[in-house]
Amino acid sequence: MQVATFLHVDEAIQLAEKEKLAEQALSKHSVWLRGWVYRKRELKEKIFLVLRDVTGILQCVVLTDSEAWDNAQKLTIESSFEVKGKLKKDKRAPNGYELQVEQINIISIAEDFPIRKYQSTELLLDYRHLWLRSRKMTAILKIRHTVFQAIREFFISKGYYEFHAPIIVPRIAEEGPTLFEVKYFDKKAYLTQTWQLYAEAAIFALEKIFTIAPSFRAEKSRTPRHLTEYWHTEVEAAWLGLDEIMDVAEEMVKHVIARVLEKHKQELALLQRDTAELETALQKKWKRITYDEALKLLEQHGMKVKWGKDLRTLEIEKLTSLFDTPVFVTHFPKEIMAFYKPASKENPKVALCFDLLVRNVGELIGGSERDNDIEAMKKALKKAGENLDAYQFYFDTRRYGAVKHSGFGLGTERLIMWLCGLQHIRDAIAFPRTINRFYP
Amino acid sequence: MQVATFLHVDEAIQLAEKEKLAEQALSKHSVWLRGWVYRKRELKEKIFLVLRDVTGILQCVVLTDSEAWDNAQKLTIESSFEVKGKLKKDKRAPNGYELQVEQINIISIAEDFPIRKYQSTELLLDYRHLWLRSRKMTAILKIRHTVFQAIREFFISKGYYEFHAPIIVPRIAEEGPTLFEVKYFDKKAYLTQTWQLYAEAAIFALEKIFTIAPSFRAEKSRTPRHLTEYWHTEVEAAWLGLDEIMDVAEEMVKHVIARVLEKHKQELALLQRDTAELETALQKKWKRITYDEALKLLEQHGMKVKWGKDLRTLEIEKLTSLFDTPVFVTHFPKEIMAFYKPASKENPKVALCFDLLVRNVGELIGGSERDNDIEAMKKALKKAGENLDAYQFYFDTRRYGAVKHSGFGLGTERLIMWLCGLQHIRDAIAFPRTINRFYP
Repeated sequence: MQVATFLHVDEAIQLAEKEKLAEQALSKHSVWLRGWVYRKRELKEKIFLVLRDVTGILQCVVLTDSEAWDNAQKLTIESSFEVKGKLKKDKRAPNGYELQVEQINIISIAEDFPIRKYQSTELLLDYRHLWLRSRKMTAILKIRHTVFQAIREFFISKGYYEFHAPIIVPRIAEEGPTLFEVKYFDKKAYLTQTWQLYAEAAIFALEKIFTIAPSFRAEKSRTPRHLTEYWHTEVEAAWLGLDEIMDVAEEMVKHVIARVLEKHKQELALLQRDTAELETALQKKWKRITYDEALKLLEQHGMKVKWGKDLRTLEIEKLTSLFDTPVFVTHFPKEIMAFYKPASKENPKVALCFDLLVRNVGELIGGSERDNDIEAMKKALKKAGENLDAYQFYFDTRRYGAVKHSGFGLGTERLIMWLCGLQHIRDAIAFPRTINRFYP
Repeated sequence: MQVATFLHVDEAIQLAEKEKLAEQALSKHSVWLRGWVYRKRELKEKIFLVLRDVTGILQCVVLTDSEAWDNAQKLTIESSFEVKGKLKKDKRAPNGYELQVEQINIISIAEDFPIRKYQSTELLLDYRHLWLRSRKMTAILKIRHTVFQAIREFFISKGYYEFHAPIIVPRIAEEGPTLFEVKYFDKKAYLTQTWQLYAEAAIFALEKIFTIAPSFRAEKSRTPRHLTEYWHTEVEAAWLGLDEIMDVAEEMVKHVIARVLEKHKQELALLQRDTAELETALQKKWKRITYDEALKLLEQHGMKVKWGKDLRTLEIEKLTSLFDTPVFVTHFPKEIMAFYKPASKENPKVALCFDLLVRNVGELIGGSERDNDIEAMKKALKKAGENLDAYQFYFDTRRYGAVKHSGFGLGTERLIMWLCGLQHIRDAIAFPRTINRFYP
């Protein structure tokens, strides 16, 4: 085994660059790489193999008189192999270099790879476990990695603690009919929709907390923006009010944008993401308008929304098209908001809440101050037909030293969808779960 | 509102230290703090209030002639309040300082707090949402935060990508009868037990990956080391073999130990954790013995285990008592191992696998190379009574460019349990799920 001596594509190119090779000249040193066959083209006197590894692709050229010729012939698409050769500058090669092959060790010959160009969406979902190897999915998964790290990095730099709420919960719902039921031994339990009720208990110990954890919605809607299982970035902070928690949301998303732009030029280019929108969002302060102002704006653009109705997809699309950055809409009608969003003291018809709306994605974040009025919350829950039993622990958080606090939830896949410019949210996650799919 | 001017306990003390106060002297400046009443003692001419915030506790002294006297009288345990005063060195105070109170603003008076000294375990679990505020639970939750960050920090520094496998899965099991069933619209799905099968597909794109994500076992065993829902640290790496993946495991756990020792002296002291065991584990190389060697050792200490049997709790306890660091046991009998653990070529009766055993906790990590032999795996699955349908995608990963790879899984709560020296794993997580509890 020569584990230590294998280079990744990016390392091999860095090495060649270091040697300051004259145009066309061969590297002095042979290097070993390993990976999978991404493309293959066979001519009479040459075989072009494109090697793929986690860092990128490299064109490898095998000549008829090379020892490697026979093995190169045997290699099929997605076969795994080790390859030794010298790097040579080549303007026509995808990344400026090609490898003049000296030796090939076959690791495993792949069967006929079932994914070809222009496959149906359904087939790509059936073969998702293989489709992850595509350059598109690999690029998205790398950006996804960075999004997760950047979110945590932001909160930790602000003194937040990472906290974990349970996934299996009693019947407590953000939206009642969309709970997944779990057979919990001889009882019925449910999959969590939000960490919020638990987080509100934990701020009395840790004050400012965040999580990125799975959340579940048994949504029957087949839209390009819904998953039944997604990773929910949630935040809860003692002492903060509505304006302050919006500051946190804006600063956090901007931090993620900055990190992704900084680390993923290559991947964003591969995804053909026009980054101008992201750069503008990074530079400008985001507008904050009230629900009432939003309704006026929509009316000016020919869309009449009755006061008291929630904004629908088309209206959100119109609204976001009027701004060149994400936009906050605040103070929605109290009546249509979740029970824990408090009425404004100045105008009890509206709640101290916000949505952050983003072009092509819709609602990216929803947040609010949290009500401390137990009776008002009980009333709202009863009206929504909820059984109050499972909420008793939640009311306790108001009985013992309540403080002003706020929080929000962000659909992490929606953020990834926006950053990557994806048409469908399912590509923001490796193995998407939707109403008619939980395989593979 | 004076949000910007409130100091946390630790900041207030730092400020006082900076002013280089002479013994007994008062700080020149008044400071504002806020938090909850942790303890209260009322004398004729003085009220002692201990303020608790996320950073610590601070004794606040209110004199009869102070403006704050009336409000101090009203405050009950766990009431929230703002307090203004001057810091004074005091040897008798818990952290060397006390606050001479000038003003108190009451935020919210707490009802009679239901948790007192010496409560039953069940009551503390019923009131878990309030018990989180205890200094013990807060200390554990802070260490938990650091454990999560340290694990990620380690893997990212080694070039691993964070990857997310689905929680809702078809019927694929590490241990068949312990699956939780989910009603997935009109179908039956299950909660994941391991990311492994999905991770093995993803290494073809990202090569080296890790996760920390919820995993579920419908364990009927009521032991102090089992949760039905826990956070599973999992790792999968292309190209690595058994010895190399054990190196990764050892280095990773050592990194976490180092970070916790470095950041949490105070919390470990509060938890009365003797850190000598952790320091020894950090300094020494951990022994690697085979299953056969483990059996010999046990026999020397009066415990006879029949070859082919798994090690039981008592035997693991004996074994770990013989070493002053965690110990790797490798090459367990192939027959009793999961289907994906490959037979050793030198001795097909044993598998290329390991357990990392730790005192008082038992199995902390289980890992192995992964079998690339589809037929051998099918045979093992059939023998275990599994339906092969849901495994087809998994076999595909062997059909298209298979490579040597290895991985492991670590019970994150077990690691926290060990680091904190906890008697029961339920205290390693905020809201534990066990066979008879999923509330609050």
